[in-house]
Amino acid sequence: MSNLIKPRTLKGFRDYLPEMMIPRERLMETARNVYRSYGFVPIDTPALELSEILCGKGGEETDRQMFRFMNGKRDVAMRFDLTVPLARFAAEHGSNLGLPFKRYQIAPVWRGERPQAGRFREFVQCDFDTIGTTSIASDIETGLVIFDLMKAIGFEKFSIRINNRKVLNGLLAKAGLSEASVLVLRALDKLPKIGREAVAKEMLETTDATQQQVDEVLKLSEVSGTNAEVLDQLEPLCSGSELAQEGLAQLRQVITAMAAVGVTDSNLQVDVSIARGLDYYTGTIYETFLDDLPSIGSVCSGGRYDNLAALYSKQELPGIGASLGLDRLLAAMDQLKMLPETRTTASVLIAQFSDQQLQTYLQMAQALRESGIATEVFPDAKKIAQQFKYADRRGFDAVLIAGDDEIVAEKVQVKWLADGSQTELSSAENYREVTQWLASRL
Amino acid sequence: MSNLIKPRTLKGFRDYLPEMMIPRERLMETARNVYRSYGFVPIDTPALELSEILCGKGGEETDRQMFRFMNGKRDVAMRFDLTVPLARFAAEHGSNLGLPFKRYQIAPVWRGERPQAGRFREFVQCDFDTIGTTSIASDIETGLVIFDLMKAIGFEKFSIRINNRKVLNGLLAKAGLSEASVLVLRALDKLPKIGREAVAKEMLETTDATQQQVDEVLKLSEVSGTNAEVLDQLEPLCSGSELAQEGLAQLRQVITAMAAVGVTDSNLQVDVSIARGLDYYTGTIYETFLDDLPSIGSVCSGGRYDNLAALYSKQELPGIGASLGLDRLLAAMDQLKMLPETRTTASVLIAQFSDQQLQTYLQMAQALRESGIATEVFPDAKKIAQQFKYADRRGFDAVLIAGDDEIVAEKVQVKWLADGSQTELSSAENYREVTQWLASRL
Repeated sequence: MSNLIKPRTLKGFRDYLPEMMIPRERLMETARNVYRSYGFVPIDTPALELSEILCGKGGEETDRQMFRFMNGKRDVAMRFDLTVPLARFAAEHGSNLGLPFKRYQIAPVWRGERPQAGRFREFVQCDFDTIGTTSIASDIETGLVIFDLMKAIGFEKFSIRINNRKVLNGLLAKAGLSEASVLVLRALDKLPKIGREAVAKEMLETTDATQQQVDEVLKLSEVSGTNAEVLDQLEPLCSGSELAQEGLAQLRQVITAMAAVGVTDSNLQVDVSIARGLDYYTGTIYETFLDDLPSIGSVCSGGRYDNLAALYSKQELPGIGASLGLDRLLAAMDQLKMLPETRTTASVLIAQFSDQQLQTYLQMAQALRESGIATEVFPDAKKIAQQFKYADRRGFDAVLIAGDDEIVAEKVQVKWLADGSQTELSSAENYREVTQWLASRL
Repeated sequence: MSNLIKPRTLKGFRDYLPEMMIPRERLMETARNVYRSYGFVPIDTPALELSEILCGKGGEETDRQMFRFMNGKRDVAMRFDLTVPLARFAAEHGSNLGLPFKRYQIAPVWRGERPQAGRFREFVQCDFDTIGTTSIASDIETGLVIFDLMKAIGFEKFSIRINNRKVLNGLLAKAGLSEASVLVLRALDKLPKIGREAVAKEMLETTDATQQQVDEVLKLSEVSGTNAEVLDQLEPLCSGSELAQEGLAQLRQVITAMAAVGVTDSNLQVDVSIARGLDYYTGTIYETFLDDLPSIGSVCSGGRYDNLAALYSKQELPGIGASLGLDRLLAAMDQLKMLPETRTTASVLIAQFSDQQLQTYLQMAQALRESGIATEVFPDAKKIAQQFKYADRRGFDAVLIAGDDEIVAEKVQVKWLADGSQTELSSAENYREVTQWLASRL
């Protein structure tokens, strides 16, 4: 019997077939182009790090989810995000980098999460961070990059939600809840999902907070309206806390500056409930939701931190950054039918009638490629119907047909697949007529 | 005392700083563009596979070098190349792919080799393969893709060496050395390095071959001259072996077709000594050397195989492919001083004189970006000398200067960093003069 090994991927992992990988590559290119347009530079770090570098930075949950193993005598693990490697990188290369340092990194990360619909154990993150500056200009820029990213990817209807941890922390201190802040913020984060009453109940159950303290914090749930209205309603709540007032002033500054370059309420909203789980955020925080598919969660999140590399270096490295969840966004675009159905990267297929004419076909393909038209030559002189079936299935725009007679007559037939129309063109002058005709239509 | 964790990468692994990562990303983009111009489509596969999928395909050495570990109850390993995952992928998705299937994959692979100069345990491979056809058209196309890749990357002086395993196998059979073929070919591979005598000695020592048999095989070492001359000298050697003659005819066909599209002896040479270690090659084989740095080894290698996925599927999947050693090529370009010294992705830095004018700077940057000019705004209103130092260090082309007075007068000073020249331009009409001036110089 057969000794075949069953071909399969690991649980929680997946292959990308061309129909998904073509748009996935385009997404990465779009992200790179947006990051570069702001002067962010690329870096790369190893997939594997010493476990002691990675452990204890992302919290207990990420520690448990790490793919960690012994390599000889070394305790190693696969990175679970791109922030911890950046912290190690910044501490290690410090003075060689120069500050401010604006970097992006687009790379896979691995987390042994329980697999569930739309959640995988390997996914690509697209991070960008500005380190070495506390300037609010970088907070504003981070928001602009998120806005440009979403637009460049093709979204119009999306909401960047902005908050400031100083507002939250100031209000908690004012209410005497600083020590319970992690639990209080965790409950507050659920406000849009479970509502005011359930959040209050959770706060009362999980912390020592009194009903009065909880009511004080939950005044936040009552603010509403335009960004200007929300900011105005926050003023009295923040009064009496220097920290909260500072956070509010920063929020105002970011909102105003972004409006000055055209990012208004329709795509940017102050949302005082977002806290972001990770406790290293200290100032501005961002989340981004798709208006047509909010249930998929935030597709681009981040915020300001005071000290990136405290575990590895005495030098304080403040900064701000965010991460585009590329694979989550791709899944959303698939659900929203935003992905083109194509399985080819070339526009034109040259049919092969006779292998005696292969050199002619190769020359034809070369002339087209030199004009920037991606072109494939069908490798075998199979039946023409079969070659057309291949062209249809892949999604080429046109098939070029040149049998012996056409080649002698210096002619090429161009079949345009969208409408089945056929046009005869001259192949003289190194296929000038063919390339011009195609270039005008592609 | 300090409890800092020493920031460091694992032995054999490395970070890519921007000055290396910027050209590395360009190399990947170039490879993608060339692959796409021929209609190859991208795929992606997981970094981790079940060990039984990976084991035993690449030979004992690669098995030993795998990063392999238990994940819960699963025996898993990190991929050591992109060919085995392609085989698994092709067997798993078979009928969904459609044949012929032309794919590329650009991704890191991991091998626990002993670290040595220029050799790392993580490196990026750029593979392209055409599967599901035995047509010689694909052998020719593979050579053309290699040629276009090398040209697009910026090389003029390179040598694609071509051979055909059928010629070698036919000659070995004719000499009665089929059974010793692995050892004989391993010795033959060293011909350019150690010379005829040493190769003969090794063959005699490691195999049962007689002096006469070795002499017969080593007639191969005497062929020389142009491709046409080499092919003619091979005719009498191949006579009497159908297999060798078939291989010779294929060599002739590939050489002729590539010459017809301009790839001639200066970049393509028949080299009967190359055998390529891996024994799954069965026809055309390619290696590629840099004329100015041959010692770095082949930077793009591959060949034809009869059956890619025999371990996982009964369906025979013949094909041909090659792999560009991206990180090896990058190291070579660094040695050959072919890499630009730049640490920025933006061309223009807008200096920040006063944070009161931040909105103006943001609007200026937006206008430039909308004209396709990547632009960074310095985040802090630091001393202008410090901002210029930053611009010099990163390698910007120009710094835009607009203090309060300039902004009132609707003027911008452009400092061109290459020659230090300064030009005053109007900022009216949404910076039209500035963007036009810059666009004409960048």
